[in-house]
Amino acid sequence: MGASAALVGVAGATHVLHAGAIVSFLACALALAGVAHVIGEATDQVGNHLSPSTTGLIQSAVGSLPELFVCIFSLQAGLVTVVQASLIGSILANVLLVLGLAFVVGGWRHGVLEFNARTPRMIASLLLLAVSALVLPTLANELHLAAASHEQELAVVCAVVLLLVFAILTKSMLEQGQRAVPAEAHARAHAWPLSTAIAVLLVCAGGAALVSDWFVEALEPAIDTLGLSQTFAGLVVVAIAGNAIENVVGVRLAAAGKSELAVSVVLTSALQVAVVIVPVLVLASFTMGGAAFTLAVPPILAVALFFSVLVVTVVTVDGQADMVDGAALIGLYAIIAAIFWWG
Amino acid sequence: MGASAALVGVAGATHVLHAGAIVSFLACALALAGVAHVIGEATDQVGNHLSPSTTGLIQSAVGSLPELFVCIFSLQAGLVTVVQASLIGSILANVLLVLGLAFVVGGWRHGVLEFNARTPRMIASLLLLAVSALVLPTLANELHLAAASHEQELAVVCAVVLLLVFAILTKSMLEQGQRAVPAEAHARAHAWPLSTAIAVLLVCAGGAALVSDWFVEALEPAIDTLGLSQTFAGLVVVAIAGNAIENVVGVRLAAAGKSELAVSVVLTSALQVAVVIVPVLVLASFTMGGAAFTLAVPPILAVALFFSVLVVTVVTVDGQADMVDGAALIGLYAIIAAIFWWG
Amino acid sequence: MGASAALVGVAGATHVLHAGAIVSFLACALALAGVAHVIGEATDQVGNHLSPSTTGLIQSAVGSLPELFVCIFSLQAGLVTVVQASLIGSILANVLLVLGLAFVVGGWRHGVLEFNARTPRMIASLLLLAVSALVLPTLANELHLAAASHEQELAVVCAVVLLLVFAILTKSMLEQGQRAVPAEAHARAHAWPLSTAIAVLLVCAGGAALVSDWFVEALEPAIDTLGLSQTFAGLVVVAIAGNAIENVVGVRLAAAGKSELAVSVVLTSALQVAVVIVPVLVLASFTMGGAAFTLAVPPILAVALFFSVLVVTVVTVDGQADMVDGAALIGLYAIIAAIFWWG
Repeated sequence: MGASAALVGVAGATHVLHAGAIVSFLACALALAGVAHVIGEATDQVGNHLSPSTTGLIQSAVGSLPELFVCIFSLQAGLVTVVQASLIGSILANVLLVLGLAFVVGGWRHGVLEFNARTPRMIASLLLLAVSALVLPTLANELHLAAASHEQELAVVCAVVLLLVFAILTKSMLEQGQRAVPAEAHARAHAWPLSTAIAVLLVCAGGAALVSDWFVEALEPAIDTLGLSQTFAGLVVVAIAGNAIENVVGVRLAAAGKSELAVSVVLTSALQVAVVIVPVLVLASFTMGGAAFTLAVPPILAVALFFSVLVVTVVTVDGQADMVDGAALIGLYAIIAAIFWWG
Repeated sequence: MGASAALVGVAGATHVLHAGAIVSFLACALALAGVAHVIGEATDQVGNHLSPSTTGLIQSAVGSLPELFVCIFSLQAGLVTVVQASLIGSILANVLLVLGLAFVVGGWRHGVLEFNARTPRMIASLLLLAVSALVLPTLANELHLAAASHEQELAVVCAVVLLLVFAILTKSMLEQGQRAVPAEAHARAHAWPLSTAIAVLLVCAGGAALVSDWFVEALEPAIDTLGLSQTFAGLVVVAIAGNAIENVVGVRLAAAGKSELAVSVVLTSALQVAVVIVPVLVLASFTMGGAAFTLAVPPILAVALFFSVLVVTVVTVDGQADMVDGAALIGLYAIIAAIFWWG
Repeated sequence: MGASAALVGVAGATHVLHAGAIVSFLACALALAGVAHVIGEATDQVGNHLSPSTTGLIQSAVGSLPELFVCIFSLQAGLVTVVQASLIGSILANVLLVLGLAFVVGGWRHGVLEFNARTPRMIASLLLLAVSALVLPTLANELHLAAASHEQELAVVCAVVLLLVFAILTKSMLEQGQRAVPAEAHARAHAWPLSTAIAVLLVCAGGAALVSDWFVEALEPAIDTLGLSQTFAGLVVVAIAGNAIENVVGVRLAAAGKSELAVSVVLTSALQVAVVIVPVLVLASFTMGGAAFTLAVPPILAVALFFSVLVVTVVTVDGQADMVDGAALIGLYAIIAAIFWWG
């Protein structure tokens, strides 16, 4: 926590002192990861006082805060393309890069990894639903169908559908006494008092908002300085920066031979973006002053997302994965990144 | 049977008396469902006299009659878009709406539903074949390839392929002593004499033709009155009206915990549309005076069908389904319906 | 071997004597199959002297020689469309036609065929990766994205990714002491001295180069004489001619009830085209004088390949297949061939 506070301090300093764009961007990304880490710890501490199911709900809600704030501030800054790309990139980074690394590292150490195929299968079908909610409006837009001129209403319908399905998923998880992310992933030894945990959460929420604001302000000059396309910046740079914590956790779990937990943590993280953050942003963008955020994305992004979800579905369908599967996932990520390298 | 005859009578009355379009349309839809119900009962009664395999064949042939008649009369009335949409809608209604409801209701009562994954897997691969036979000609058409100017010949080739595969499937089912729809689905207590059963079938075939004619005549004014687009009317209204029986049967089976039978009945119903009714209509449209019926459909319809089949494939691949899976299927149906709401 | 030498002699004669285009084309196709057969036997003989893993590597490398030579000479002759179509056709012929025939023949004799689903599942995910490496650049090209003007660099990145994944697959196979094509497929009774086997391999490599040259020279006039489109010629004629050996082997294994081996041989053959021959050609086309070979293919080819891989994935996912599955695969091949019949 001290380290995280220091990171936020450094990020604030680069912001106030108008440090170079890249330095400021990197400092903000690190600070965001620090805040995300403390939020994870604080929700776990809350879990020592409340039931696992309630904790799971709080974790879902609070854990997405930093990413949500970055997206909302970016939308207000008019960076719709960056936001769309960074959300899709967040899913891609999880299901391809992180899961691929987890399989390569885990497979390297333990040979063929075994895990229960039920959770990945269920997440795969929900991800495919989310992909449909992206591909169909995108196609309607490209073909100039009548629905294209009702893009916002259509996006709201899709968002409500996704949130309802997520609500039923949450209810089902709670009833089964399971959380989407299994509890052991975050088990800690010593407990905080509930008041401390809640106070930390509130401070973190404020910190997340503050650092997100600086991050977005540093984003555009950093993109210009590096000469990146907006899509590549969102798809790769923002996506990886925004998922640093999940990435490390997922790979370490796989290295420790806990492949079931690793698969669950990584895929749940991708699912949360697809069926919580995206629909919340769609609904939020109506009440905000910024640019409208709809589900009609550049077609190549939608197709890249579709293939990623499809490959992950096939790789995890039999509850077995090894280095070759991991390499295939990372390879697909590299191909997609290459396509957007030139804009 | 008495109730069904009454429904046909009411539909006839609304037709002769030129009742309001919506009233007449609803009366005809109910009458069609009644005729379909009696046909189902009569083929079961025939089954008390003939071998299960022969009964299965008769059931396949006669059970599709009402839907076939509606489509043929609609084609003769030049409603090609409505027919294409209603056939695809019939598949969507089965694999998404009915199966989704079955999983939600069954999952609500029984938790995780278990079923043998072999039948759904086999049906999924045949549905994917049928989707390919729709997507590839559609794409050839959109891209103005050379094949596009031979649209009708191409449609005939695809239709013959689908019917041949269906013939091999039927032969395989007969040899295994199984019917596509397992026998218990329709087991009845008291038997009719064979002559009665056949007479009822003949009367029903005539009744189906008559009511289908009225239904199609009432369809266009009803669409206009309701201000619906032709695609939405076909995709949602006609599709649900034409599958009322399967819908009720599928959901009731799942509620009774017979999930294997429910999955089989619903998916077989979708498969019959894809590999029997569609190819028969393609071949029939050449010999009729009406509009040509080919496999080049609006691209968005083809893509919506593709995603639906894909999601159902993933949901059923492990022989387990629960409320969340059901919600995902219904959610996809809602998103697709929303896209066509505006035309 | 004597027969193969005779076939090469006949092909040479038709070439020197300027026989009719079709005669010459057929003679060269037969001679290529003969050379491929002898190469298969010689690598097996090498296997009597070296470890199975080294043999597997040599077999992968040498077994692809005839197909590689045909493609390279065709590229030098500017026949880019034919090469792209024949490579995709080679994959389609394997996963649809040959596997379909194997399932029909095997299912006819043995009912439901059972096999370990792990190998097909792993090959399916790698084939999907290869399909992504084709679909995404093709789409970027169609949509005139920035990446489209860097088509060659993008193709090189994809080629390197595919070859790296193949290298990891090979390493993993070697460590597990397995070869991609199980050893029994080619077990022979009497051994050659190592020197003989290597000498035969060298002669075959030379023979393959020679006959490939004649084959390509006879190809264009044969296409013109038959009035075929270039795509159909590559997709169907060249693809089937170039895979004659695998075809016969796969179907005979299935007929003998060795379904696991049959599935493995056929799918591995398709995988080798996708992740070895295609990327090697991409890299080779830069160093050659001929036309550039990239991964942006006609969209309909990419979509046809995608559906083929998807259907094969679903058919093999549960480790069971019967005549119906075989018929579905062959049916899809027939539909795709029909689409390209008119160009």
